[in-house]
Amino acid sequence: MNRTFFPMNRVLLGPGPSNVHPKVLQALSKPALGHLDPQFIGLMDEIKVLLKYTFKTENEAALVLSGPGSLGMEACLLNLVEPGDKILVCVGGYFANRMTQIVEKIDGNLITLKETWGRAIDPNKLEDALKQNPDTKIVAFVHAETSTGALSDIKTLSEIAHKFGALSLADVVTSLGAVELRIDEWQIDAAYSCSQKGLACVAGMSPITFGPRAVEFIKKRNIPVQSWFNDLNLLLGYWNGPGKRIYHHTAPSNQFYGLHEALLLLKEEGIENSWKRHKENSIKLVSRLEEIGLEPLVPERERIPNLLTIKIPEGVDELKVRMDLLNKHNLEIGAGLGELAGKVWRIGLMGYNSNEKMINYCINALKDVLQ
Amino acid sequence: MNRTFFPMNRVLLGPGPSNVHPKVLQALSKPALGHLDPQFIGLMDEIKVLLKYTFKTENEAALVLSGPGSLGMEACLLNLVEPGDKILVCVGGYFANRMTQIVEKIDGNLITLKETWGRAIDPNKLEDALKQNPDTKIVAFVHAETSTGALSDIKTLSEIAHKFGALSLADVVTSLGAVELRIDEWQIDAAYSCSQKGLACVAGMSPITFGPRAVEFIKKRNIPVQSWFNDLNLLLGYWNGPGKRIYHHTAPSNQFYGLHEALLLLKEEGIENSWKRHKENSIKLVSRLEEIGLEPLVPERERIPNLLTIKIPEGVDELKVRMDLLNKHNLEIGAGLGELAGKVWRIGLMGYNSNEKMINYCINALKDVLQ
Repeated sequence: MNRTFFPMNRVLLGPGPSNVHPKVLQALSKPALGHLDPQFIGLMDEIKVLLKYTFKTENEAALVLSGPGSLGMEACLLNLVEPGDKILVCVGGYFANRMTQIVEKIDGNLITLKETWGRAIDPNKLEDALKQNPDTKIVAFVHAETSTGALSDIKTLSEIAHKFGALSLADVVTSLGAVELRIDEWQIDAAYSCSQKGLACVAGMSPITFGPRAVEFIKKRNIPVQSWFNDLNLLLGYWNGPGKRIYHHTAPSNQFYGLHEALLLLKEEGIENSWKRHKENSIKLVSRLEEIGLEPLVPERERIPNLLTIKIPEGVDELKVRMDLLNKHNLEIGAGLGELAGKVWRIGLMGYNSNEKMINYCINALKDVLQ
Repeated sequence: MNRTFFPMNRVLLGPGPSNVHPKVLQALSKPALGHLDPQFIGLMDEIKVLLKYTFKTENEAALVLSGPGSLGMEACLLNLVEPGDKILVCVGGYFANRMTQIVEKIDGNLITLKETWGRAIDPNKLEDALKQNPDTKIVAFVHAETSTGALSDIKTLSEIAHKFGALSLADVVTSLGAVELRIDEWQIDAAYSCSQKGLACVAGMSPITFGPRAVEFIKKRNIPVQSWFNDLNLLLGYWNGPGKRIYHHTAPSNQFYGLHEALLLLKEEGIENSWKRHKENSIKLVSRLEEIGLEPLVPERERIPNLLTIKIPEGVDELKVRMDLLNKHNLEIGAGLGELAGKVWRIGLMGYNSNEKMINYCINALKDVLQ
């Protein structure tokens, strides 16, 4: 154990992390910078501009949390929910369920809307739930539910939330960069994501954005945000000024180099092109999987393009298949989570990995271990 | 702005980040691994063993939070303080003061012991404060107060806490790896640190450790930890099992490669040798600074070996000096914080940077811009 660690060169076709673009990996090992170095502040400003492009927003509050997507989830809820506030969470999978666990920990008044795992959230159900709970302050939902493979129509969900005077919070952890997402046009009030899926970067950062109404709410809270590390008011002092940036925490410079490079690559491709590429490769992957007798869980029009859930054929030892894929082919795919544990595999074609070579690799490996 | 970012090769002699060992930088750009990959779990196990060596502890709860040291501070307080619990924080600087801000946000019953900025915490004051507050459950203090340069005798502080039946929590952000620290021998119940100072790694990770009594307390809390991301019970399920590791968050694999390498380098040197090196270079730096008329703030026996605060000579424009150092010499030193803003500079010789070449570089640059 007293030796330098050399990871295997895995093919990462699970629900994330996915393989990282070589230019991003390179960027990570550049010399570190101080968190208040003018050059580093300049980098943060560039990241902000690139995030606004990626989120399709003009929000001034567009920044990166120095921790993974699940920190982003907790940070958004901590900022938007005052103890006792009514929050409605649309739950059709493991990650929406995690939101409810956090809401309970921070003393929100939780209302849960339940959807079948593997289906998009039904907007009619949201409308009904809000009629029964007109004092709801926040409606939270997951865009692409990584545990089930279902994509929800968050434009419509956000519209309904607004009709009832609530703010909308979207989990865009799996969709950002890979699936059509328009924060401003769809009037999403707040959203959080991660770095290691559609952005093809390493794990450990959480891009977030808050619209003007959400920022206003946070500034005027009666009870201060129950966290120092995640308090948006403090984070904005570091990210946006005005003027001199106020020290908050020591930002991880090298992680930020990687994210900057990943966002640049996405902009170079054009985000609409990236959405299209993910969609097209998803269609190809499904038809190739069907050829070898594997069937998607989610109905076609509700499928996440970059993350497919595949039903495990009867009589197949799912763990053995995944271990064989890993040990014989260096290939990682995901297990089912929560209600779907043991029932599905999860195959991701994300970011740098959304291409025909990866489809071929995946199909050939699956054929080999399933035969 | 649509270009790859190339950071200047700064000489980082501020309060951290410090320059990263080239082997650590290299480690960062290895291929990513999934957070449940058996190989990655193996890496986490090695990191745990190396952390126990570094903390000088046999604690089973020795792990890394996927965020910077300030997240570690918040996580420790969230886990150890139940709303309404009395916690005594020994405040002699900016970072201890941050603890009090967090305690207020999480509804702890805060008692503050005030010490002069630039001095070690006086154990007699703690004894008096605990006599007046015998129902105190936690005593929290900073080992090496990065804002003032003062090192406290946390062995004695912890003894006093225990005498009154309280648990002890130590901030070892600046000391870990660079200053003598013995978690078990000194009976520290919980401690948190960072990656970018004494460990000579990149920023963004927080090594923490909890002793058996602290873990017991957290397991038996009446009110669940008010955070999902920082809940030690969940984190231990991922880090320690038993048996199969339970998914918590997506750990940043590449950051962990860097930390593993940094901890290996420290073990290779021998931690006692590292403490000695930091001490010796600190003495050399002070005498060289005194030769050019600069004076340390902190009395000799209370000085942090790896972080010196230097009084700003009368009539000197402190900001101009720092900007000149940066622009003419690529050298970053730290400004004063809080009460000491405008009154001191902070010079760190940490980890990879604690050597004679850096002392020469620093003195020559200071001579140049101060002349």
